[in-house]
Amino acid sequence: MTTIQSLQTDYFLVPLETVLSDSTHGTIPHFELVTVRVVDSDGAEGMGYTYAVNSGARAFHALIEDYLKPVVIGQDPDQVEKIWQDMWWAVHYSGRGGHATSAISAVDIALWDLRGRKAELPLWRLFGGYDPKVPVYAGGIDLDFTIPELLEQADRFQEQGYRAIKMKAGRANLREDVDRVRSMREHLGDDFPLMVDANMKWSADQAIRAARALEEFNLLWIEEPTIPDDVAGHVRVVREGRTPVATGENLHTLYEFHTLMAAGGLTYPEPDVTNCGGMTTFRKIGALAEAHNLPLTSHGAHDLTVHLLAAAPNRTYMESHGFSLDRYLAHPMEIVDGYTMAPERPGHGIELDWDALEAHRR
Amino acid sequence: MTTIQSLQTDYFLVPLETVLSDSTHGTIPHFELVTVRVVDSDGAEGMGYTYAVNSGARAFHALIEDYLKPVVIGQDPDQVEKIWQDMWWAVHYSGRGGHATSAISAVDIALWDLRGRKAELPLWRLFGGYDPKVPVYAGGIDLDFTIPELLEQADRFQEQGYRAIKMKAGRANLREDVDRVRSMREHLGDDFPLMVDANMKWSADQAIRAARALEEFNLLWIEEPTIPDDVAGHVRVVREGRTPVATGENLHTLYEFHTLMAAGGLTYPEPDVTNCGGMTTFRKIGALAEAHNLPLTSHGAHDLTVHLLAAAPNRTYMESHGFSLDRYLAHPMEIVDGYTMAPERPGHGIELDWDALEAHRR
Ligand SMILES: [Mg+2]
Ligand SMILES: [Mg+2]
Repeated sequence: MTTIQSLQTDYFLVPLETVLSDSTHGTIPHFELVTVRVVDSDGAEGMGYTYAVNSGARAFHALIEDYLKPVVIGQDPDQVEKIWQDMWWAVHYSGRGGHATSAISAVDIALWDLRGRKAELPLWRLFGGYDPKVPVYAGGIDLDFTIPELLEQADRFQEQGYRAIKMKAGRANLREDVDRVRSMREHLGDDFPLMVDANMKWSADQAIRAARALEEFNLLWIEEPTIPDDVAGHVRVVREGRTPVATGENLHTLYEFHTLMAAGGLTYPEPDVTNCGGMTTFRKIGALAEAHNLPLTSHGAHDLTVHLLAAAPNRTYMESHGFSLDRYLAHPMEIVDGYTMAPERPGHGIELDWDALEAHRR
Repeated sequence: MTTIQSLQTDYFLVPLETVLSDSTHGTIPHFELVTVRVVDSDGAEGMGYTYAVNSGARAFHALIEDYLKPVVIGQDPDQVEKIWQDMWWAVHYSGRGGHATSAISAVDIALWDLRGRKAELPLWRLFGGYDPKVPVYAGGIDLDFTIPELLEQADRFQEQGYRAIKMKAGRANLREDVDRVRSMREHLGDDFPLMVDANMKWSADQAIRAARALEEFNLLWIEEPTIPDDVAGHVRVVREGRTPVATGENLHTLYEFHTLMAAGGLTYPEPDVTNCGGMTTFRKIGALAEAHNLPLTSHGAHDLTVHLLAAAPNRTYMESHGFSLDRYLAHPMEIVDGYTMAPERPGHGIELDWDALEAHRR
């Protein structure tokens, strides 16, 4: 039997080209990257990663190195679901979601990459493809931008090929948010897909007030209007705010997505494949969204996510994430007229520039 | 202004005197202990700890050392609630519960200990005491015991002063569970408080079937009948199983407790002060339970928890936990006729034997 022979995990502190900011995370000078490389007894390899905004990824690394690696070594690499369950229960008492899920995600992604490479298939085909042409939106991390800077950024995004844009909301005063969205709407035209992201800044009541103040601008969605723990609040924002709600980047289990969807508090699920439990869980969330008749979007890690959305019949726009790995990729994502094509390279097809990353190892 | 000057965190792998087992965690040869010691600019000290069953605590240590410590140093030690919020948001993106909450718990406990010591008050008095005499139950970790071993253990517990006992359930066959509970009920008499703990072994339907099969034995509660993520399942077990349900040792946020209580799926909340967010959050969960007209029990860490239950008007039995720190304590808990007294020593009053623990540092 083929078994997994080795698992290597590494931690990198990667500086951002531009220091970013949003309503929750303050200024963001770098992000933390934790990679996983597995090799099986046939010599086949797989690579996965997870990341964090400013803080927490040392815990991912510790969980993988000290607790998940012993679970994974010696297992049949084709039994990803079994390995996933074993990992989940290995760190269940101490975590049950949270940091555990990001650690599991990185390993799960590496296992799927290995499967794809052995099958000589890109993951979107291995998953049973739907459509490799995936619509993409640009997520601006721009809460502190001036209005002219916002509009310049929008022009730049369009030059890069984007045909949908998300901007941050959650300024100290709702009037500022309204002015900023109005300027963007006037600049982009009535039909341009525009979303806002409040990064959990508001209470449910504030979010409803904001949604109504922004109603005339016909937003595709309002993202993370309040903390993901407030299920009843989300239901109210959807109904009383009369605006679709996206959330998911801070949900870490299939169950958390289920709770919000079943309650009617989530219109656009946006799982992050690097913190929801990996490709295994992302696909289940996609199926759950389909069962709830909801469009599936995403957060972060677009080079991985493109395979998942290319295989999901209910997929809508994929987020092109602000924390790009582009500088370290042999094949950065290309966008043409609002779409990207899922690659034909086997596995996820990401080749990291390990030499360049080495400078950021900590 | 007084500020927090230093925070030291340590990791110990502590062997158990007896290897334990339950339906979820398999065999448990040791537990992981992570301690936190804070010192403020007046030279006052506080100590907190958290722990894990077999796995995960390296992540607690990494979170405290790398991410929480920088948040805590320099803060006013009297502003525990502010420090708690700062810690929560510092590791929110990477965690939002899970491992993050255990790490936060250890620091929070150290901060409360420091407050109590500076005030020269035991924490149960500082919290506004209710009754220092707290009823205690013995939690057997005994799924693999034979029936004679179970009964012997029950005798030993009673000799030690316990007047309430919890046993494990979740054997391969429900008939075995029924036989074991029947033997215990006959041995202990009709009125002896007896609980069972399934450690999430069952589906909701299996739990309902088990609850009905065990109904004649008049159990005080069934603990963790299924995974804590299954809110609707818990509601069914409470109603259709006609047996009170305890859960909470695997809930890691105030919100998770709220969701289960508000749904009617939880009769006996059993937060663990070392993984629910510390004393700050435990007290909020207690208030939430009171608002829902529910009795408050507990999981683990009884030497800390006794202060919390001694200050809670809705408190019921406190768990005396299987992973005892007794060998490393200057003042192990004493039980007389089913009760223990919250200590009068300042803070939580725990003095760890650091020299003895040193042998287990990893
Ligand atoms: Mg977002
Ligand atoms: Mg239990």
